[in-house]
Amino acid sequence: MFKSMRLMKAAKQPFANMLRDPSSKYKPFKGVSLPNRTWPNKSITKAPRWLSTDLRDGNQALPDPMSIPEKKEYFHKLLELGFKEIEVSFPSASQTDFDFTRYAVENAPADVSIQVLTQSREPLIRRTVESVKGAKKATIHTYLATSDVFRDVVFNMSKEDAIAKAIETTKLVRSLTKDDPNMQETEWTFEFSPECFSDTPTEFAVEICEAVKKAWEPTVENPIIFNLPATVEVASPNIYADQIEYFCNEISEREKVCVSVHPHNDRGCGVAAAELGVMAGADRVEGCLFGNGERTGNVDLITVALNMYTQGISPNLDFSDIESLIDVSERCNKIQVHPRAPYSGSLVVCAFSGSHQDAIKKGFNKAEKRLAQGDTKWAIPYLPLDPKDIGRSYEAVIRVNSQSGKGGAAWVILRSLGLDMPRPLQVDFSSIVQTEADKVGRELKTEEIIQLFKKQYLDSEESSVVKLVDYDVSKNKDNETGRILNAEISIDGVNSNVSGKGNGPISAFVDAISSRFNTHFEVVNYVEHSLGSGSQVKAATYIELSYINDKGTKVKQWGCGIRSDVSEASMQAIVSIVNTLIETKQISA
Amino acid sequence: MFKSMRLMKAAKQPFANMLRDPSSKYKPFKGVSLPNRTWPNKSITKAPRWLSTDLRDGNQALPDPMSIPEKKEYFHKLLELGFKEIEVSFPSASQTDFDFTRYAVENAPADVSIQVLTQSREPLIRRTVESVKGAKKATIHTYLATSDVFRDVVFNMSKEDAIAKAIETTKLVRSLTKDDPNMQETEWTFEFSPECFSDTPTEFAVEICEAVKKAWEPTVENPIIFNLPATVEVASPNIYADQIEYFCNEISEREKVCVSVHPHNDRGCGVAAAELGVMAGADRVEGCLFGNGERTGNVDLITVALNMYTQGISPNLDFSDIESLIDVSERCNKIQVHPRAPYSGSLVVCAFSGSHQDAIKKGFNKAEKRLAQGDTKWAIPYLPLDPKDIGRSYEAVIRVNSQSGKGGAAWVILRSLGLDMPRPLQVDFSSIVQTEADKVGRELKTEEIIQLFKKQYLDSEESSVVKLVDYDVSKNKDNETGRILNAEISIDGVNSNVSGKGNGPISAFVDAISSRFNTHFEVVNYVEHSLGSGSQVKAATYIELSYINDKGTKVKQWGCGIRSDVSEASMQAIVSIVNTLIETKQISA
Repeated sequence: MFKSMRLMKAAKQPFANMLRDPSSKYKPFKGVSLPNRTWPNKSITKAPRWLSTDLRDGNQALPDPMSIPEKKEYFHKLLELGFKEIEVSFPSASQTDFDFTRYAVENAPADVSIQVLTQSREPLIRRTVESVKGAKKATIHTYLATSDVFRDVVFNMSKEDAIAKAIETTKLVRSLTKDDPNMQETEWTFEFSPECFSDTPTEFAVEICEAVKKAWEPTVENPIIFNLPATVEVASPNIYADQIEYFCNEISEREKVCVSVHPHNDRGCGVAAAELGVMAGADRVEGCLFGNGERTGNVDLITVALNMYTQGISPNLDFSDIESLIDVSERCNKIQVHPRAPYSGSLVVCAFSGSHQDAIKKGFNKAEKRLAQGDTKWAIPYLPLDPKDIGRSYEAVIRVNSQSGKGGAAWVILRSLGLDMPRPLQVDFSSIVQTEADKVGRELKTEEIIQLFKKQYLDSEESSVVKLVDYDVSKNKDNETGRILNAEISIDGVNSNVSGKGNGPISAFVDAISSRFNTHFEVVNYVEHSLGSGSQVKAATYIELSYINDKGTKVKQWGCGIRSDVSEASMQAIVSIVNTLIETKQISA
Repeated sequence: MFKSMRLMKAAKQPFANMLRDPSSKYKPFKGVSLPNRTWPNKSITKAPRWLSTDLRDGNQALPDPMSIPEKKEYFHKLLELGFKEIEVSFPSASQTDFDFTRYAVENAPADVSIQVLTQSREPLIRRTVESVKGAKKATIHTYLATSDVFRDVVFNMSKEDAIAKAIETTKLVRSLTKDDPNMQETEWTFEFSPECFSDTPTEFAVEICEAVKKAWEPTVENPIIFNLPATVEVASPNIYADQIEYFCNEISEREKVCVSVHPHNDRGCGVAAAELGVMAGADRVEGCLFGNGERTGNVDLITVALNMYTQGISPNLDFSDIESLIDVSERCNKIQVHPRAPYSGSLVVCAFSGSHQDAIKKGFNKAEKRLAQGDTKWAIPYLPLDPKDIGRSYEAVIRVNSQSGKGGAAWVILRSLGLDMPRPLQVDFSSIVQTEADKVGRELKTEEIIQLFKKQYLDSEESSVVKLVDYDVSKNKDNETGRILNAEISIDGVNSNVSGKGNGPISAFVDAISSRFNTHFEVVNYVEHSLGSGSQVKAATYIELSYINDKGTKVKQWGCGIRSDVSEASMQAIVSIVNTLIETKQISA
C-alpha cells in the first residue's frame, strides 16, 4: 500500500532538481473563461459576513494544538471581536472536539452561529448534528472532493458519483436538522464546500452546487452557504476572482445563496484572493486570525478587515486592542506573529529610515494644521493606519538605528524629554547617534539616545567641572544699551568671580567666559522654547558657540540649558558647552 | 518645529477610536481609469528582470542592521542565487555604505549591475557616482516626491518644481556618467522612481517620466528604468496593475523603457501586486528575500519567483537550497522566517490533518504509476511544489498531532521502520497515537510514535514474559492437508512445550497458544510483506487475533513480527499479541 513512497525515494531524480527545465514538471494553471468580467471595476463597499475557523482549520495545523482551556479563551476572544459565525470543530473526530462543541453551543450568544465540519459519511454526520443540538443557530458544514485530482487520486469517484453523494449527504443533514420536528429550536444553516474549488472545473462546481441547493431548498431569509475554497492556492488571485464571478453568475436563485470564499496562502496571495473574491461577488470570507492554518495558513482575517477599514469601510469587527489579541494568539497557538505581519507585526508601525522619519514628522505637523481647519482625514506618510486605532501608541513609530537620519533621534528626545531641538542641532546630534549605532551594530534604545544627548549637550550638574553659582546683571554706565554681568562660578569646587560686557546677559556671559578660558567664543545659534506649563513652566535654551581651537581652526559646539529663569537657562547652556570642551580636552580649566 | 506632536497628544481624540465611523477618518483610494484593461487576460510567460534591494531597502529596516561581514556574505549569496541587479547601498549616507559599495564594485562579476540609491541633491549625487567608479555595470537610482501628500506635506514642491528638479538631476547624473569621457569603462544605467507612485496621479507619473526620459536619452539596448514603487500599499493589487498598464500604455518609446515594480506589503498583497504588475506590462521586479524591508516589508522575491516556477516558468533564480538561504538570512538579518511563509516556512510542506495526510500519500502512490507511464508532471494534493526542488526532504511532509488521522502515524512508521501497516492496523494504531497526542497536548515526535508502535505491536524480546524458543512443523498423519506444530516457549524464564493442529503453521500455533492460555484465539487478519532486499531480506507479518475476554466479549488485538523465516515472523506476531494481553491483564501467564 505504501510501497509507492519507498519507490519514490529511488525514483527521485525525475522529480528533483528540475530548475533547468521546470516546464517539464509543472503545468501552468488554466482558469475559467470569463469574457465579460466585471470585478476589476468593482470595489468593496460593505463588510462581508465573516467566519472564523481558528478553532478548526487553524487549530488542526498547529504543531501543538490548543488545550481545552486555550480553546475556550480563544472562543471568547472571537466573540469579543464581533464574530457572528465561528467554526469550532470537527466534532465526529474525537471526544475532545465533541465536548468542546457542546461548550461552544452552551456559551454562544443567541446571534452567533456555531459551525461544525463533517465528512460526508452517515455516522459522522449523525454525531456532528448531535454535537450542536440545542444551539440557537448552527451551521452544518460538509465537503466533498470535486477537483479532478481529488476525485481521481484520493477518492476514485466519478463526477456522477460525487453529485449523487452530495445529494445524499444534503438530504441526510436536512432530515436530521430542519426537517426534524424535534430539532426546531435551532436555526439551521447548511454549508457545502466543493473541494478544492480553486482546482475544480468551475462549471462542475456550479453543477454540483445546483444539485445540493435543490436538495436543501434554501430560502432568501436563510440562504445556503456555498463555500468555494482555494484549499490550495494554485494560481494568481485574479483567476480565483474569475472563478468566483463565474460561479456567482451561473448559480441559480442567487438570492438564496451565500457565496463564501476560503483562501489559503500557498502563493502568498490569500488576502488578495479574498478581496478580489468579494469584488467578484462573494458575500462571506472564511479565515483565521494572523493567517493561521495548514501549511502557509488560511487568509488572515485581520488584514482583510483592516484593509477595508483604511478604505473607510467598517469591517464590523473590532481590532482596537490588537496587543491583547496578539497575546492570546501567541499564547494559545504557540506561534509568534511575524514582526512584519500587516497591521499586527511589531515593526509595522516603525520607521528606521531617516527620510521616512522626517516625512512622518512633517505629516503629523500638517495633520495638526488640517485638524484645526476641521479636516480629520488620516494622511500621514508611510502610515496607512493610525496606530492608535488598533491600540498602539506613536512611541514605537520612530526607531533609531545606524540607517536613521536626524529626525529619528530628534523625535525620541522630543517624546521623552520634551526638548524640541532646532534643525542644526538635530544634524549635529544625528551624526553622534549614527556613530554610536554603527559602533554597537544594532538599534539604539530610547534610554541610550537620551544618555547620548545628555552627555553631549546637557550638564550632569553634580559631576561637572564648571558650575554656575550665581549671577547679577546691571546696566553698563558707559553704554546705554549695554549690560555688565558679574557671575560666581565654581571650577573644580573652587569658587571665583567672572565678569563680562555685552548687549544682554548672554553676550555678557560669553564675554566673561571667553576671558576666563582664554579663547574667543561667539554665539552662532540661539533658540529657546518653553517646557511644561503653568507654575512648572521652564525655559529650554539651545546655544551654539564657535571658538578657535589649538590648531587655530574655528569649530563649533552646541549646549542646552533648562531653568525656570530664561537667562539662567542660557548661561547653563553655555556652561554645558564649556564643560564638554574641557572634558574633550579642547580647552583646559 | 515639533510642537505638532505634542499637540497631537492632546488632540488624539479626533484620530483615535473611530471604529464606529471609520468613514469619517479614512478615504477610499481612487485608482486610474483604464476602460480597456487587458492584464486580467494575461499570464506570466517569462521571468522578469529581478533587482534585490536586500542590502539597501531591506537592511535599512532591520532593528539591527547588517555588519560589514554580514553584508558581504549576503552579497555573495545573492550572486549565487543568480541576481544580476543588486542595489547595495545609499553610498552618500555614510562612509560605511560608501566603503561597502566599493567592495561590491570590486567583487561583482562582469554581468552584474551594482545599483546605488541617492537623493536628488548635487553633492550626494557626486558622491554616489564616485562610489561605483570603475564598475563594469552600474545603475544610478534617483527618486523624487511626486505624490500629492509627499509634494505638499514633505517637500512643499509644485508639480512644475518636481519636473524641473527631476530634469536637473537626470542631466547632472548624465554629465557625471555616460557623458563623461573618463567614465566610459562602465555601462551606465539610470533608474528613476516617482515616489510614491502608487499614490501619485498616474498621469503625472507619466509626465515626469517623459521629462526624465528626454533628459537621459535612453536606447533600446540600454533602456532607462522607471521604477514605480508602491512605497506604501494603498489599494488592492488590481488597482496597482491598472496603474502599471496605464503607465506602460502612455509612456512613449516603450522599447527604450524598462518598467519596474517595487511593491511593499502594507495590505498583505505585495506578491499579488508584483504578479498583476508583471501581467500589466512590467519588465522588472524589485524586492527582498523573505519580504524584508520597512514596516511590512518589500515584496518577497522568493515567493514571486517560485510562484512562476510552479507554473512551469523558470524564474532564472536558483532556490534549490532554501535551507542555506534561510540560515544566511536569519543570521544576518536577525529576523526569523515565519513558519508559514510561502515556500520558505518550516510548516509549509507539512500536513497535520489526517485527510490531508491521506491524500498526500495517495498522491505519491498515483504519481509512481504515472511516472511508470512517463508522466513526470507534479500533481500531489496539498503540495503545490515538490519539496525536493527547494532542497527539502519528504520526511517533514507529514507530522503527527492530535488532529492527525491514521495516515500520519502510518507514514512515520513506514519511513522509519519500513513497516507498511495494513489499513485496519493503521486505524487501530491511529487511535492509540491520537490518545497519546491528546494526553501530552502537543505534536508527537517521530521517536515517540515509533516507541508507541513497538510497545503496542512489537515484542521487546528481552523483557517479554512469553518467548518463542524453537518450533517444529510436521504433517498431521490423521489429516492429509493438516499440520502439527510443536513449539518450545519460555514463560517467565521457564521453558515448556506446546503443541497444536491446523492447516498450516500459523493456525497450528494459534491452536497451541489457545490451549496453553485457556482461551480461543482466531485469526482475523493476516498480512505479510518483505523488508529489505538481498541476503538481508526479512518478513514482516501483521496478525490480528480475536479472543473472548473475561466479560465474555469478543475483542481483538494486533501484533507484528519481523524475522528472516516467514513462519517464525508469524509466530512472533502471535507471541507479541499474547505478551500485550498479559501486560494489560487481559489474560494471565
